[in-house]
Amino acid sequence: MDTEIQSYIDEAVKKAVDEQFTTALKKNSKAAIIASKGTLDMAYPPLILASTCAALDIECQVFFTFYGLDILRKGKNAHLGVPPVGNPAMPVPVPNIIGMLPGMTAMATKMMNGWMGKVGVPTIPELLDTCVESDVKIIACQMTMDVMGIKREELIDDIELGGAATFLNYATGCNITLLV
Amino acid sequence: MDTEIQSYIDEAVKKAVDEQFTTALKKNSKAAIIASKGTLDMAYPPLILASTCAALDIECQVFFTFYGLDILRKGKNAHLGVPPVGNPAMPVPVPNIIGMLPGMTAMATKMMNGWMGKVGVPTIPELLDTCVESDVKIIACQMTMDVMGIKREELIDDIELGGAATFLNYATGCNITLLV
Amino acid sequence: MDTEIQSYIDEAVKKAVDEQFTTALKKNSKAAIIASKGTLDMAYPPLILASTCAALDIECQVFFTFYGLDILRKGKNAHLGVPPVGNPAMPVPVPNIIGMLPGMTAMATKMMNGWMGKVGVPTIPELLDTCVESDVKIIACQMTMDVMGIKREELIDDIELGGAATFLNYATGCNITLLV
Repeated sequence: MDTEIQSYIDEAVKKAVDEQFTTALKKNSKAAIIASKGTLDMAYPPLILASTCAALDIECQVFFTFYGLDILRKGKNAHLGVPPVGNPAMPVPVPNIIGMLPGMTAMATKMMNGWMGKVGVPTIPELLDTCVESDVKIIACQMTMDVMGIKREELIDDIELGGAATFLNYATGCNITLLV
Repeated sequence: MDTEIQSYIDEAVKKAVDEQFTTALKKNSKAAIIASKGTLDMAYPPLILASTCAALDIECQVFFTFYGLDILRKGKNAHLGVPPVGNPAMPVPVPNIIGMLPGMTAMATKMMNGWMGKVGVPTIPELLDTCVESDVKIIACQMTMDVMGIKREELIDDIELGGAATFLNYATGCNITLLV
Repeated sequence: MDTEIQSYIDEAVKKAVDEQFTTALKKNSKAAIIASKGTLDMAYPPLILASTCAALDIECQVFFTFYGLDILRKGKNAHLGVPPVGNPAMPVPVPNIIGMLPGMTAMATKMMNGWMGKVGVPTIPELLDTCVESDVKIIACQMTMDVMGIKREELIDDIELGGAATFLNYATGCNITLLV
């Protein structure tokens, strides 16, 4: 082949790989999210991120593991709680000794649900429905189910089961990876 | 056209993408960080990571959401607390029943501030200043402000407001994405 | 050179770079994980992810910082605890006022160790050994050691010491980045 053509190609390739890298990163953008917490406050971030990914046309999978599996439990996921203890950052800080009293978890949870509803933030089951309907793939951690003795029928439909390898194999094709 | 040219291109691209991948990834490195916690201990990681990014010339944006918004609240961010309960990993473990007593959050917080100061770790407001001065872009979560009734003037200057979409749109161009 | 050839090359290069990008991302996949928690439940995710990375041939480094340093402390890492308070998502929820009683952290910890063992999940020291043996690079945060007065000899062998810059310099070459 003509050496002129060769060197033109070499240069074009170098330029394309360099310059189009950011574009390619954007275009091929995929998100892999781990949801490992089961409190009401920490159930929001993975679901808000995943549903926003869907709205932005970013392919997304969420892997629910450890306490995060509660977000997928039928019945239970509509009643996740906020702990009023051990959290000096609570909007209305509650002294730990008061937060200990029976009923305080229920009260903190009611407060947070009230705030969320007032500004139109959907509930956890609503956000989950949005994710499923907009093709966010939801994966329940099989190991956590075994450890905690949770059966498939306790979880919502439209999910798959998998393990850390399932998550990592998907994550290798992603640039956005987050653990909540 | 000449199949010889086509196969030369394919090979050159394959080589360039493979070989230059790590270099390009490094060169185009950008970090998108979410700060979702408002305790003193968990306020450090996003700010230390962001200011270190700046020092290493890695472009960085931090998105403050949920309790993490407290890190941006004037006055409040100088007095974030460490919870002495629910944390068996505390350097000096405090039995939960003692951690409950009034004044224990203040004592645990004082201890941590003491340790940090002794080895020259800057305070939260100081780290925040460093981030702003070194062009780390700081974004406050609008939804959290609405939910918690926080006004713009309660937050520090030199920040922007945004939502999950703001974060994700930036994150699509990043390879480093972390949620604290 | 013939402009027809030029435009052919430009287009072919663009197409090849786009198409081969995901393949390269997968092939060059590397993971940078931060372990910042020291409770038994949160010690599992970084170690399970890292050992699974090794099994999948994904290069991986784990940076242990803040309370996460306890995972590397000889003797201590075999006895990490689960806090029964401030966690409404505990599999068997314990009212906070009961979780406060002396002995309850020990009981919750014993329960979790029992569950894990029953389904064959390795212990923390076992998982750590697996990571070291399969070439996961383990880095202890020097700043945390200074802050908490932890000496090198208190930590397990086969680790390196480093700071946030060590982590970020490695993370710039990674696509999987997670903070636990």
